[in-house]
Amino acid sequence: MTARAQIGVTGLAVMGRNLARNFARHGYTVAVHNRSYAKTQSLVEEAGHEGDFVPSESMADFVASLERPRKVVIMVKAGAATDAVIDELLPLLEEGDIVVDAGNAHFPDTIRREEALSARGLHFVGTGVSGGEEGALLGPSIMPGGTRESYESLGPILEAISAKVDGTPCCTYVGPNGAGHFVKMVHNGIEYADMQLIAEAYDLLKQGLGASAAEIGQIFAEWNSGDLESFLIEITADVLQHVDAETGSAFVDIVLDQAEQKGTGRWTVQNGLDLGVPITGIAEATFARALSGSVPQREAGHAALPAHTQEWEIGADDDSRARFVEDVRLALYASKVVAYSQGFDQIAAASAENGWDIDRGAMARIWRGGCIIRARFLNRITEAYERDANLPLLLADEYFTNAVGNGLAAWRRVVAAAAQNGVPTPAFSSSLAYYDGVRAERLPAALIQAQRDFFGAHTYRRTDREGTFHTQWSADRTEQEA
Amino acid sequence: MTARAQIGVTGLAVMGRNLARNFARHGYTVAVHNRSYAKTQSLVEEAGHEGDFVPSESMADFVASLERPRKVVIMVKAGAATDAVIDELLPLLEEGDIVVDAGNAHFPDTIRREEALSARGLHFVGTGVSGGEEGALLGPSIMPGGTRESYESLGPILEAISAKVDGTPCCTYVGPNGAGHFVKMVHNGIEYADMQLIAEAYDLLKQGLGASAAEIGQIFAEWNSGDLESFLIEITADVLQHVDAETGSAFVDIVLDQAEQKGTGRWTVQNGLDLGVPITGIAEATFARALSGSVPQREAGHAALPAHTQEWEIGADDDSRARFVEDVRLALYASKVVAYSQGFDQIAAASAENGWDIDRGAMARIWRGGCIIRARFLNRITEAYERDANLPLLLADEYFTNAVGNGLAAWRRVVAAAAQNGVPTPAFSSSLAYYDGVRAERLPAALIQAQRDFFGAHTYRRTDREGTFHTQWSADRTEQEA
Repeated sequence: MTARAQIGVTGLAVMGRNLARNFARHGYTVAVHNRSYAKTQSLVEEAGHEGDFVPSESMADFVASLERPRKVVIMVKAGAATDAVIDELLPLLEEGDIVVDAGNAHFPDTIRREEALSARGLHFVGTGVSGGEEGALLGPSIMPGGTRESYESLGPILEAISAKVDGTPCCTYVGPNGAGHFVKMVHNGIEYADMQLIAEAYDLLKQGLGASAAEIGQIFAEWNSGDLESFLIEITADVLQHVDAETGSAFVDIVLDQAEQKGTGRWTVQNGLDLGVPITGIAEATFARALSGSVPQREAGHAALPAHTQEWEIGADDDSRARFVEDVRLALYASKVVAYSQGFDQIAAASAENGWDIDRGAMARIWRGGCIIRARFLNRITEAYERDANLPLLLADEYFTNAVGNGLAAWRRVVAAAAQNGVPTPAFSSSLAYYDGVRAERLPAALIQAQRDFFGAHTYRRTDREGTFHTQWSADRTEQEA
Repeated sequence: MTARAQIGVTGLAVMGRNLARNFARHGYTVAVHNRSYAKTQSLVEEAGHEGDFVPSESMADFVASLERPRKVVIMVKAGAATDAVIDELLPLLEEGDIVVDAGNAHFPDTIRREEALSARGLHFVGTGVSGGEEGALLGPSIMPGGTRESYESLGPILEAISAKVDGTPCCTYVGPNGAGHFVKMVHNGIEYADMQLIAEAYDLLKQGLGASAAEIGQIFAEWNSGDLESFLIEITADVLQHVDAETGSAFVDIVLDQAEQKGTGRWTVQNGLDLGVPITGIAEATFARALSGSVPQREAGHAALPAHTQEWEIGADDDSRARFVEDVRLALYASKVVAYSQGFDQIAAASAENGWDIDRGAMARIWRGGCIIRARFLNRITEAYERDANLPLLLADEYFTNAVGNGLAAWRRVVAAAAQNGVPTPAFSSSLAYYDGVRAERLPAALIQAQRDFFGAHTYRRTDREGTFHTQWSADRTEQEA
């Protein structure tokens, strides 16, 4: 076996297969391996003409077919399967080789694996890959963690197969150990928020205008030519205009309204709680999916609960309707800025906690193509962090302050109308509450601290001088320094 | 050493000390032990007249001073300290003895410990104890988990020292292994939501009426004679009317507005995410505390972000002001019902997942006294679960449906006014969004499922027939059974 392959992929289900084809199409010689050899053979049979594949039946042959330092991409199910493949690879690898986990690992697992492999002189690169099957084949957004040294030889190959926007690859070095998978997790959390916000905008247009799915699809198509231009808005327009062949109804109207999830939204929110970063947009989006699937609760609620809603105050004329559509558009954009601002806060907090030194502007840049949240808007985020790499709050960047300020009155009208008219808009409402909270000079959290001191002697600080204090509530109510 | 003590307490910081005194005051002979003997001695010196204490310097003597089956209450810091005490106790105990962890353990740790101790023939009782220092001495709410067998001998002692409401102890058997600590965790999560809702009501009254803290304290005092009657409303009235001796200002106005937390709110939300139960009120309350402490974000936000608020539409006359106060009261009550409804949902889900068979009505009953969320309102919850032990949604119980329905128009007005006037009400808004979500016949989650199928082939179900389907979006858009 000549060691001639520049990169190898083990795990040839559709994602791994498409990544391997993408490498081959870019001129790399690709070692390929799968637990059952049939998949390896079928890849070479069906895609062999696309480039240079080196198939191996055994893991030993697969490893032997790779040039040093070896670069092995693992694309198997996250969890035990990944550990099993790593265990099988370890005795076959040599110092300086690079193991790449391109699956959807939870970042603490990546930190653990990186520690174990680096102790054996190997590089372990946990990398986020976003874009689904099509992205894997045609150009995903790639978020690799690990050592800078590993990126020197691995990075150019990953950049070559990544999506490109204005000639710039949607791949860059993210940071040490778990940083890549962490950033991919937050990407997915933001995706949850983005999708929920779009769903709420759709619901408002449906209920406020009494519009059909196709009409709302047209509105989204128009929105896609402005600030909201993005993959998710584009496919929303497409999905809403799709007709179910079987019934002739709008497709969206025959889909069961119970949203499922695979766990990355949950991970993101759980991590936000650990870090103490208020990512309320992602939390509401995750819980909205949970509520949609809470069938016994929804059945009981629908049967029992009154509505007591107001009448919509939208005139029947075209101008009134157009004003409402524009209000919803502005509210969607503002809420979306909040969700991204919160997500980038979370990246900053995790980066500081883990010593990752993540460049947030670069993250926005590599999300511009290939991935699910790709959007024109991300250029504005990159620019904001170019203006100030340590920006404490994305919302407070001049561009976003103006953009949101411009739509603020509309945003308030929409959230108020949703409350009055009984349209559930947890993500719109929560984002506005966050905006007003982060903007407030004074929050009622002071009362919470006072209560905590009253019932639990948890102490408080004062606005007028340093120190920690406790009031003797059940005695003479004097204050003492704690 | 004669084995004559009926119960023992090890760990004599203020909580353990007060629990020991409570046992002694109720006529039990109490073995007491602490790592440093000085605390044991000071307890006996200062409180020895209250009852019968048996002090021991060594753990061996402490254990030897207990009647069999021994009942040892551990009251040390949650985590490693608890494990260390258990390890020290284990060689000294005999089959059938009962180890009680009365600290704030995270319930998965309790499950682990119970498994380890039951394998050695011992009973391990993880118990929630709520009420702080004063409750520990005068009667806390107690939530013990573990075996039913252990409750036969331990239960009467715990019931004796617990708070009583209408003669009924605020203590009952909760369920196996981690059930007691789990229920205590949800209690604390609900406490977070309750406190945040009160803080938002205060903020609305302050901003809407331009009222002083003392005036708002009067309003809370009045509220405490109605449906909202509760410990937290009572102390809010008290705190708001308290004057800072140093400055002569209202006390709440000199407290720094950064709320702290000790982690149980976070645990509750993380568990809600794991279970897929939308506990949005608790989540927003936890994140509101996090936001209040996000100083760089708040400074940047306050400096940069415009308000664009409307003028308040509250007349200056007394009637108009009274109507606004009543609106806020109704909105607070309705939001509170949602937060409790969500928390009881979480208990039901965890009970089903872990086979705990928790009686939710009994949990509301033992929270009526002793603990922080004690309230008149909890009787109504107990009654609701007496009417239907398997009630899928507390909100859908006739009493609560009527109570919330009665305030629904006011709730909508308040949430709408908060949005228009720039008062951050994340918990009020989120609770209303949940209400409208759980009430909706149709949610826009269908669009989310359609998007997921479009970009990730995640499939969907249909409203009109069984099965799981995928549309070939990038091909001819036919539908196939998945």
